[in-house]
Amino acid sequence: MALAHKGLAVETIPWRFTDKGAIAFSGQGRVPVVQDGERALSDSLAIAYDLEARYGDRPSLFGGVGGEALVRFLNNWADGVLHPALVRLIIADVWTILAEQDRAYFRTSREARFGAALEAVQRDRGEAVIGFRKMLEPLRATLGAQPYLGGAAANYADYIVFGAFQWARVTSSFPLLEADDPIVVWRERLLDAFDGLARQVPAASAP
Amino acid sequence: MALAHKGLAVETIPWRFTDKGAIAFSGQGRVPVVQDGERALSDSLAIAYDLEARYGDRPSLFGGVGGEALVRFLNNWADGVLHPALVRLIIADVWTILAEQDRAYFRTSREARFGAALEAVQRDRGEAVIGFRKMLEPLRATLGAQPYLGGAAANYADYIVFGAFQWARVTSSFPLLEADDPIVVWRERLLDAFDGLARQVPAASAP
Repeated sequence: MALAHKGLAVETIPWRFTDKGAIAFSGQGRVPVVQDGERALSDSLAIAYDLEARYGDRPSLFGGVGGEALVRFLNNWADGVLHPALVRLIIADVWTILAEQDRAYFRTSREARFGAALEAVQRDRGEAVIGFRKMLEPLRATLGAQPYLGGAAANYADYIVFGAFQWARVTSSFPLLEADDPIVVWRERLLDAFDGLARQVPAASAP
Repeated sequence: MALAHKGLAVETIPWRFTDKGAIAFSGQGRVPVVQDGERALSDSLAIAYDLEARYGDRPSLFGGVGGEALVRFLNNWADGVLHPALVRLIIADVWTILAEQDRAYFRTSREARFGAALEAVQRDRGEAVIGFRKMLEPLRATLGAQPYLGGAAANYADYIVFGAFQWARVTSSFPLLEADDPIVVWRERLLDAFDGLARQVPAASAP
């Protein structure tokens, strides 16, 4: 979304958890990774900051120095609050769509992290989703007052949070939001952005 | 802090909860209230947005349109997550420093809200503060990476969160943060800002 926001032509490369060799050039083992000429960058926020610095003549990802600074708080909220709550609702669903060669790695590493079987982690999600929706209240209240976290138009702040919902959308059919949640309207708008870029990735179908 | 940031000369008026008449000119019954010429404004964020629009030639409170938009998320986080957790740690302390004429109003209205005696609400704070500190992790992680939420210098984003800590500082001696918390360093810097404006209000002394 950030690359599309900057209007940059990119080639995307499908990647699997266990395919560490394909991103070894980045000097670490996690996605996202961006290669731009001779440079390799990792970490979403670091990539966004770099894009803003290198392509300053293109549409801003942050809308000024204040947004560029404050987005770090939102990023930390997404990493530390949103993602940990979300992963517990869909972690076993994620496993079901993995390629065979990734399944053992994913199950072993994640079950060690949670101290429980993937299926046990998400078993009570019918109740846990109530707390998840309550946790989203600062997002919901903001989107009730303005179209995007970025204001009148979407910016990198929106893409941070949307990324979590997009990950859930393509890995799980579990309904995270109630139909009348203002967050749904916002999510749909971002699925439509850039000629439906995010919507081109198919949503998970019900098991 | 926002008024000082804009370098505006102001007269402040001490006010008590039950003194609704003194702010009736604002058309509502809660502080903060700002009177600027013929205009009366209430609600902290609305006041900040108005100050930025009216005094655009003075130092920016938001650092651009992106910060101005995203600060609404932070404000909703402060109102919906930070304040509700904080109030449960100090609510009975707040009562002890009130003037006699405010005590019944405050106790009755807050005990109705919590469904418990003020003293019962904060009774388990020795344990509850652990969750409070964990809730602050997005703030802590951000201040571990940059001096202020606003970036290299403080802006309205910082004042939103600092306001909660200042309220606690002047009403309660309960230690909210551990001494080595990066949030403490940031809080001290904001107490020093504008020639120690916030520090001029005495901290609550231990009972």
